Amino acid sequence: MSKVVPLKINYKTIEDFKKFREYGLEELSMLEDLEANMIEDGANSPFFGVYDDEKLVGRMSLYKVEAKYDKYFDPPEGYYELFKLEVLPEYRGKRIGSMLVKYAKSLGHPIKTNARNGSRNFWLKMGFSPVKYDPIRDRGENPYIWHPDGF
Amino acid sequence: MSKVVPLKINYKTIEDFKKFREYGLEELSMLEDLEANMIEDGANSPFFGVYDDEKLVGRMSLYKVEAKYDKYFDPPEGYYELFKLEVLPEYRGKRIGSMLVKYAKSLGHPIKTNARNGSRNFWLKMGFSPVKYDPIRDRGENPYIWHPDGF
Repeated sequence: MSKVVPLKINYKTIEDFKKFREYGLEELSMLEDLEANMIEDGANSPFFGVYDDEKLVGRMSLYKVEAKYDKYFDPPEGYYELFKLEVLPEYRGKRIGSMLVKYAKSLGHPIKTNARNGSRNFWLKMGFSPVKYDPIRDRGENPYIWHPDGF
Repeated sequence: MSKVVPLKINYKTIEDFKKFREYGLEELSMLEDLEANMIEDGANSPFFGVYDDEKLVGRMSLYKVEAKYDKYFDPPEGYYELFKLEVLPEYRGKRIGSMLVKYAKSLGHPIKTNARNGSRNFWLKMGFSPVKYDPIRDRGENPYIWHPDGF
């Protein structure tokens, strides 16, 4: 449990994903595409994870948003949308979540996430800041952002 | 607990909101705007709720998205984004969630929501359908949609 690795799309990964609370349309769509041969077994996924031996115990998804779609940074720039950050219950408190976020930060781009209930202190500790809420843009989300230059 | 009412922005409403799990930047921003007199005490909020006597026991937020921003319906049309649907734990199982969704449907426009973990069956029962997942548009969300014409 010392490193973060990119996750390939294959049946084992998708089976592993079922253990996570936030299993939804994204994972179902991957499975369907795999079954229909619309994506190759072993293709890159947007997910990164941490294994304990063969067991996936933490994961996150990173999606690169191009500068032209950026509504969070000024001036606009390419950033990562970080979501589905989750560590299996029995592996919490071991800094696996921090390890994943540090990995995302090491990629050298700003990051935006939607802070879940009760995760506020975690994001503040990771150096993220809440944005000024914009109802049209944010529609009920709790966006927290981080920038490599630290503003 | 027999009717859904629009919620006015005032200190009581915001205090009531603190009992809900999904209290976040949106509510904090309302409070700040109220304190700074940037919104009037008693202004309309995007929230609707159900009271048990004086106690707010269920709520949801409805945000009208204009047709030109619609990426879910074909042809594009104005729809409601429904979020923060939540009933206080001790009031669950009394169909208050259904009452709120029925109210949203009665407004006569399509609805889009992001289905939370474990809420899939609820949305299917309410006549919503999952969309075909689009990673660029949906970024980890679980969009479920409903259309008055039942397409």
